[in-house]
Amino acid sequence: MSGPPPAVAAVRVAVRRCLRGLPPGPVLVACSGGADSTALAAATAFEARTAGRRAGLVTVDHGLHPGSAAVAARVVALAGSLGLDPARAVRVAVGRTGGLEAAARTARYAALEAAAAEAGAVAVLLAHTLDDQAETVLLGLARGSGTRSLAGMPAVRGLFHRPLLTVPRATVRQACAEEDLPVWEDPANADDRFARVRVRRDVLPLLESALGPGTAAALARTARAARDDADALDALAAGSDPFADGSAAVDDLLAAPPALRRRWLRAAALAAGCSASALGAGHVDALEALLLDWRGQGPVHLPGGAEGLRRCGRLVLTPPLD
Amino acid sequence: MSGPPPAVAAVRVAVRRCLRGLPPGPVLVACSGGADSTALAAATAFEARTAGRRAGLVTVDHGLHPGSAAVAARVVALAGSLGLDPARAVRVAVGRTGGLEAAARTARYAALEAAAAEAGAVAVLLAHTLDDQAETVLLGLARGSGTRSLAGMPAVRGLFHRPLLTVPRATVRQACAEEDLPVWEDPANADDRFARVRVRRDVLPLLESALGPGTAAALARTARAARDDADALDALAAGSDPFADGSAAVDDLLAAPPALRRRWLRAAALAAGCSASALGAGHVDALEALLLDWRGQGPVHLPGGAEGLRRCGRLVLTPPLD
Repeated sequence: MSGPPPAVAAVRVAVRRCLRGLPPGPVLVACSGGADSTALAAATAFEARTAGRRAGLVTVDHGLHPGSAAVAARVVALAGSLGLDPARAVRVAVGRTGGLEAAARTARYAALEAAAAEAGAVAVLLAHTLDDQAETVLLGLARGSGTRSLAGMPAVRGLFHRPLLTVPRATVRQACAEEDLPVWEDPANADDRFARVRVRRDVLPLLESALGPGTAAALARTARAARDDADALDALAAGSDPFADGSAAVDDLLAAPPALRRRWLRAAALAAGCSASALGAGHVDALEALLLDWRGQGPVHLPGGAEGLRRCGRLVLTPPLD
Repeated sequence: MSGPPPAVAAVRVAVRRCLRGLPPGPVLVACSGGADSTALAAATAFEARTAGRRAGLVTVDHGLHPGSAAVAARVVALAGSLGLDPARAVRVAVGRTGGLEAAARTARYAALEAAAAEAGAVAVLLAHTLDDQAETVLLGLARGSGTRSLAGMPAVRGLFHRPLLTVPRATVRQACAEEDLPVWEDPANADDRFARVRVRRDVLPLLESALGPGTAAALARTARAARDDADALDALAAGSDPFADGSAAVDDLLAAPPALRRRWLRAAALAAGCSASALGAGHVDALEALLLDWRGQGPVHLPGGAEGLRRCGRLVLTPPLD
């Protein structure tokens, strides 16, 4: 007996590895009806059956286009034919806070967590591929906010697992085609008002042609290394932070490696009331100049009204006066 | 009296900051005759004169195109008219080891170091701009070999200083135009057999249009953060490496953060004789699987004949038998 086609096998192996690491209990697949998550649903149905584990499906209807309810109903019907149980569609209301993409994501993850709680699921499987990871790294790169912004998506966060994060999108799509599964493409995937769509359609193909065909895989490897590095340094910085009562000795700050010093300065500014989104690398530069380029200068003004100043051998961060 | 045009002022300020940090003694500008290094030469001549410091110029003639000697002679003549002294052209022989770009770079840096020694220079100033740094980050990203590969070029390494690393190329070119300096464009800058040329001409402009106009600056900030992080973690890993006589306790390796564990595994493989260029993330993955995914598997074969295996609670790296 010959095995499944290579692409189908690759997706199943990735899912099998993920299921193996989970505690006993049902899992849910999050499925939009697109090719990636449909391939994930089929592979999960197969692997869960083999492993004697219950697997269900949840599809989130964002209500963002006419006919979204019909798509959700078709996904639920497909789930039934794959043997996934329970199979549910959940309708969510998408706000506009932080932009449409961010609001849709927030609503989606909340709905998936609620569905997992209701089903008693030990995990929710998400269909992000190696190419999604590469896109996330490029989007983070453009923010320029350090190693953490290059860390991409984690393979595991809480209930959420991403078994396909090392599988190329082309393989996942091929698996879907090999199994003749019906797929529905979200028109938002072609809407170039979204930076992610522009990166996917224009930037990554050009990068691959300029730098070589392994570029998406290299970006995904970069994400993993950046995540490891940021985790280690964030933990180290948190465990050795010399700021107490909003101030730290200049000598301690000067003696530390820049990677720790800049994390401490950022943490101290946040503790003084700066918002994380308003606090940029330039503010940390200005605080660091009080140490590295000290010429008796006055206070550094931080977003939200906090201030940093150097006084009597200490760097002092003060919250805004109200 | 009105000051110089803003672009000229920006380049001069960057050079002034650099010169201020140097010990007393002459400096040399490395100049190809292109717009960036010609602007750097003019700014350095101005700032050194103001600061009472001697500044000279060296131009490296790679002999890679007909007329390169004539270009070098014109650069030396320009240096004289700017008041740079000594001004010298140095002819180098470029081999082919590691490719034309790498061989030309090796020959160039050796010639610059020799010229600095001869002139008793305390620094050699290089004209790399913020955009060069962004290109370097993208090229490193495509290698996918971790945080270090994103670290770009350092602002200072030994004698070499890069004062323009935070100045956009457009500003530097504008400065050159404002001062009406004669420039010569190296045809290699338009030769798209070079990955760097493809990144400069195609990738960065597209990234800026897809992700926003601050992308090159964000990439340069990323380089700085990545360099800091890699420096801190490399030092930490070197100071706490549990490998002794080519082996380490599995428990120690499992207890460490992945960022340190993977650095130790890489260092142990290098110590067992693997070449740095042949040793990839996949080899480190395979060694790590002996820890994280242990199923009694056999040895991991490394490039060059070294092996990694798990035995009696230890991970052992053995050099090739000769």
